[in-house]
Amino acid sequence: MRNVAIIGVGMTKFGERWELGLRELMAEAGAKAVSDAGIEGKDIEAIYGGIMSAGRLIGQEHVGALIADFMGLTPIPSTRVEAACASGGLALREAYIAVAGGAYDIVVAGGAEKMTDVFTEQAAVTLGGAADQEREVFHGATFPSLYALIARRHMHEYGTTEAQMASVAVKNHANAAKNPLAQYQHEITIEDVMRSPKVAEPLKLFDCSPITDGAAAVVLASEDVARKFCDAPVWINASAQASDTLAVFDRRDMTTLNASVVAGRKAFEQAKLSLRDVQVAELHDCFTIAEICAVEDLGFVKKGEGGPAMERGDFALGSKLSANTSGGLKGCGHPVGATGIKQAVEVVWQLRGEAGRRQVPAEVGLTHNVGGSGATAIVHILSREVR
Amino acid sequence: MRNVAIIGVGMTKFGERWELGLRELMAEAGAKAVSDAGIEGKDIEAIYGGIMSAGRLIGQEHVGALIADFMGLTPIPSTRVEAACASGGLALREAYIAVAGGAYDIVVAGGAEKMTDVFTEQAAVTLGGAADQEREVFHGATFPSLYALIARRHMHEYGTTEAQMASVAVKNHANAAKNPLAQYQHEITIEDVMRSPKVAEPLKLFDCSPITDGAAAVVLASEDVARKFCDAPVWINASAQASDTLAVFDRRDMTTLNASVVAGRKAFEQAKLSLRDVQVAELHDCFTIAEICAVEDLGFVKKGEGGPAMERGDFALGSKLSANTSGGLKGCGHPVGATGIKQAVEVVWQLRGEAGRRQVPAEVGLTHNVGGSGATAIVHILSREVR
Repeated sequence: MRNVAIIGVGMTKFGERWELGLRELMAEAGAKAVSDAGIEGKDIEAIYGGIMSAGRLIGQEHVGALIADFMGLTPIPSTRVEAACASGGLALREAYIAVAGGAYDIVVAGGAEKMTDVFTEQAAVTLGGAADQEREVFHGATFPSLYALIARRHMHEYGTTEAQMASVAVKNHANAAKNPLAQYQHEITIEDVMRSPKVAEPLKLFDCSPITDGAAAVVLASEDVARKFCDAPVWINASAQASDTLAVFDRRDMTTLNASVVAGRKAFEQAKLSLRDVQVAELHDCFTIAEICAVEDLGFVKKGEGGPAMERGDFALGSKLSANTSGGLKGCGHPVGATGIKQAVEVVWQLRGEAGRRQVPAEVGLTHNVGGSGATAIVHILSREVR
Repeated sequence: MRNVAIIGVGMTKFGERWELGLRELMAEAGAKAVSDAGIEGKDIEAIYGGIMSAGRLIGQEHVGALIADFMGLTPIPSTRVEAACASGGLALREAYIAVAGGAYDIVVAGGAEKMTDVFTEQAAVTLGGAADQEREVFHGATFPSLYALIARRHMHEYGTTEAQMASVAVKNHANAAKNPLAQYQHEITIEDVMRSPKVAEPLKLFDCSPITDGAAAVVLASEDVARKFCDAPVWINASAQASDTLAVFDRRDMTTLNASVVAGRKAFEQAKLSLRDVQVAELHDCFTIAEICAVEDLGFVKKGEGGPAMERGDFALGSKLSANTSGGLKGCGHPVGATGIKQAVEVVWQLRGEAGRRQVPAEVGLTHNVGGSGATAIVHILSREVR
């Protein structure tokens, strides 16, 4: 398969974007990425879009064609993919497979979600569609309650504390405060998290990522084309995807997201890199406990040591591994389908040295995008070098 | 890119399957295809599933992971794609791209929809998600009314008659009567169609495909693997996809589905075949007028001659080109996400000589799967020869 580079990136401001619909958000992100790549619309051969629940949130399916239509790019192929909160990562992966395999030379991969057109309760019910409807949600489980189960078990097995979880939110807000596109550009304290209203014990409001509108897009190109259009391509050294049971109760160990373990291992194998080579990682912190599981599942710390590591600030901005420099899902916001693409946008900015006040020295970056409570995980490794 | 073959196929009975849920339908079709291919679960490297609206119909998104989970195939990658009624064709195409490009050697592509768990009205509203929600559906358009616009214009431009449209339904029911997996295994007459209740004039109930539960699956393999596992592989000679405006009113000519024109042309170019080489075609007859447009858009008849050709029986079983030997969407049923895969299953059966009482002599077959009112079209050409 051919080498594939990201030659352009773009994203909208994340937040409550009352003034824009899904199509406008997608078009803004797409236009920014295309402009950043220095290409024109006619150069684009196909589109992959990750959108989780436009059907339930705005009554609109068939969003692939909608993107091509609204951006004036018909009749090119435009494909929607969905893997709940990993929809964006999946769009990146499918676009990568298509370009690496030779189906296309230049492809736009995007992700978007318009979540604030419905009441928060309805958005929460919709997000439940990422879990097992018949075996979890029907019986009353919500997404926070499923991650609360994971958190409780993690506390029980490893002594993880609520303050340790809170430290994830504090770190990510600190990073988001430096990101002009983040939903929450302010810092918070451990106390703020601990005092925030309980959502599903032990998770409190500030342990949870928010409801967000937004979109992000990247332009992928095969090696020949990338070198022609771009002085500073960022290469996709690895793309890996894995699945797990949809229901949390079906797993041998509730504190391990096996899809993350498998996807992470495969990605490092493909990239021929080790954990130590990575300086920036966008990790899937839909809840604070999820980022603790992520650093364990990917191998950055030993099992059970994620909580203390977070409390020590091991993954703070400028440390050996800066995690969620964008602010993560918690601080930057979580427009579901957009998140996996936004992670790639942030890592590209870091690798290019364009991350502004949150810039860290980085040669290799990783994105980790999880669907639901871990039934899908998608890991990409990006760097400035072909490997 | 590598040659890719279909080495196994399977589908459920289509119909009102009250006794089965989406996951059981998917598992039944998948298990049949895997068994037909003579492979085992451990041989499968990835899954692509086409499902349109599980979110709105049964509250379940994240259906890719659900398939892998329920079939006991975790942790392999499992990807849901969606392009409204072309979701199945899109799953086949993405699986083809992944195998042809070298990402995997053996992949299952499936499609499914569980539509009867909600009231028919709700299913109809959900199907509206395939059209432009803001610019068509919000203003009162339904799917039948959009195709009624196309039909009226076709009648105005070319003198197409309601009886000519009715003849499509008569032909497809005649074929479905010979298909033990079809939803409607009985013949109907022109009079039956003409007398059926009006849905959106000039379309009557029997001009419309039904609400259906069902699933279908195919196993794809790269050339080396296909020759190892299979004595009679069916080769995917071409896979093409195109997009068009989501809204019908945005098109230059309402009677032409430009995505079908583009995808058809690209497919014949890729396969290095001409229209005359095709003996069986599964065409997207969501409404009778749609099959008339299909034979015109793909070039089997000249523009405006689809109606008279249908009335003459030019595409009847055993004619030079047998269209919708399965019974089509009208007779076999239309479980939305399953349809594009079922089309491939039927063509494979025809090419292998396993189509029972509806068998026709066939060396080359075509599938034509349309999303919504034509914003996505996907065409595959299959044959017993590598080309």
